[in-house]
Amino acid sequence: MTKKIAIQGERASFHDVAARQFFGDDITIVPCDLPFSKVFDAFESADFAVCAIENSIHGVINEVYDLLLERRPWICGEVVLPIEQCLIGLPGAQLAAIREVYSHPVALSQCKQFLSTTLPQAKLLEADDTAGSVGLIAKWNDPTKAAIASAAAAKLYGMAVLAKAIETNHHNYTRFVVLAHKRPIEVKEANKTSLVLQLPHTAGSLAKALATFADQGINLSLIVSRPVVGKPGQYLFYIDLEVGLNNETLQIALANLHTEGNTIEILGSYRKNV
Amino acid sequence: MTKKIAIQGERASFHDVAARQFFGDDITIVPCDLPFSKVFDAFESADFAVCAIENSIHGVINEVYDLLLERRPWICGEVVLPIEQCLIGLPGAQLAAIREVYSHPVALSQCKQFLSTTLPQAKLLEADDTAGSVGLIAKWNDPTKAAIASAAAAKLYGMAVLAKAIETNHHNYTRFVVLAHKRPIEVKEANKTSLVLQLPHTAGSLAKALATFADQGINLSLIVSRPVVGKPGQYLFYIDLEVGLNNETLQIALANLHTEGNTIEILGSYRKNV
Repeated sequence: MTKKIAIQGERASFHDVAARQFFGDDITIVPCDLPFSKVFDAFESADFAVCAIENSIHGVINEVYDLLLERRPWICGEVVLPIEQCLIGLPGAQLAAIREVYSHPVALSQCKQFLSTTLPQAKLLEADDTAGSVGLIAKWNDPTKAAIASAAAAKLYGMAVLAKAIETNHHNYTRFVVLAHKRPIEVKEANKTSLVLQLPHTAGSLAKALATFADQGINLSLIVSRPVVGKPGQYLFYIDLEVGLNNETLQIALANLHTEGNTIEILGSYRKNV
Repeated sequence: MTKKIAIQGERASFHDVAARQFFGDDITIVPCDLPFSKVFDAFESADFAVCAIENSIHGVINEVYDLLLERRPWICGEVVLPIEQCLIGLPGAQLAAIREVYSHPVALSQCKQFLSTTLPQAKLLEADDTAGSVGLIAKWNDPTKAAIASAAAAKLYGMAVLAKAIETNHHNYTRFVVLAHKRPIEVKEANKTSLVLQLPHTAGSLAKALATFADQGINLSLIVSRPVVGKPGQYLFYIDLEVGLNNETLQIALANLHTEGNTIEILGSYRKNV
């Protein structure tokens, strides 16, 4: 049966590309606007959700961690996607003839350098989303108009990629988490675990907690601190560990942390994407 | 002499409010567009810069940390500002008569709940920036048009605050850093230090480094990990410590970290704002 996947954005958005990379093409996406709470709302009546959680330029998205703690889905996978922007126009359109470029303001801003050097003659016009702007180009059927979006959006609307990787910062990738409703009974294949640790704000509390993982030879791939809203002196730590939840070393470390009175919330365990 | 301060955004933007909270009103701001690199460019010919580095909803801004490491200014202060959005109109304008609301798309999105319940009749229209949209309201002189921006923007243009704190999430604050060109000889008054630590990706390397601070009774107020672009297995850690750089305990901890062969970059030392 075709799975229903709630995502942020439209068909051929980067969330859609991430969802298809994880699930394949036999899915029905449920497109959602921002804020991210709408993705979590739509997830209620979908099978899975795919949601950005971290971007290499902007950092971790606190808003998504808040929703993970509040709504308690289970992270069952991750997708790390390079954000490669393309200039998209009608098949046969010439770069020199482009007079108008449409896209989401963030995408326009990511490609400013390319636009000012290669298309100084073009007017930049804001659209609601990247993929949707390619739909407009297809509809208008005018070779002087172009859009900025993913290569997937060009394919979806039968348009041509006129230039690729036009973003200024080529180290731009986004990490997406795949959300399921229930924690599976076994997570055998998992080699990564995401959790949230709450610690008192005393010197050494974090060093001690991390030593518990180090004692078991467990590597961290992410740690982000965050003050607890309304509880001065309490800190949350978002932590990703390079070990599956079923691994004995992690079970020992978690038991030790529990014994020391720390609050640990497991967000999920899954296979590492890169 | 009036100091020149490079900021992101225009007069009466939240960056401007932060700059005035730190320096007082006798400043000349140098307004800059996004991306944040433009603020760092403008800083070259200004006395100071004020730049957002962390938001309670969106998290730490990696892009700004990259610029701090590349350009090497000295963080000489911080400002933590609640982001309180106001509905702003002509003096005497009535909420029920508002038909159009102008603002930056992010601000419109932050206030969606208020807009849909209190002003369901109003059309939402995107503007380039929050403060600028208040300027438009003042120019148009039409009591059916309103803008969303800071209270400072209302004051600047002689407009009225029709409703305040209209953002959906009231725990929205942004932390700004104040950047100077040189590290002062003394940082006596400082009680906070920001640094970047580079560690090998081995189990326990972070736990060991943090124990060095804990051994000296030093508290962390922030820790964020980040993979080093192009160097797999190397991690950077953005760390804020609750102690000034001149404090003997920190000097001992830093000496120990150096001895163990870790790379430490001090970004600044300053007085804590909250």
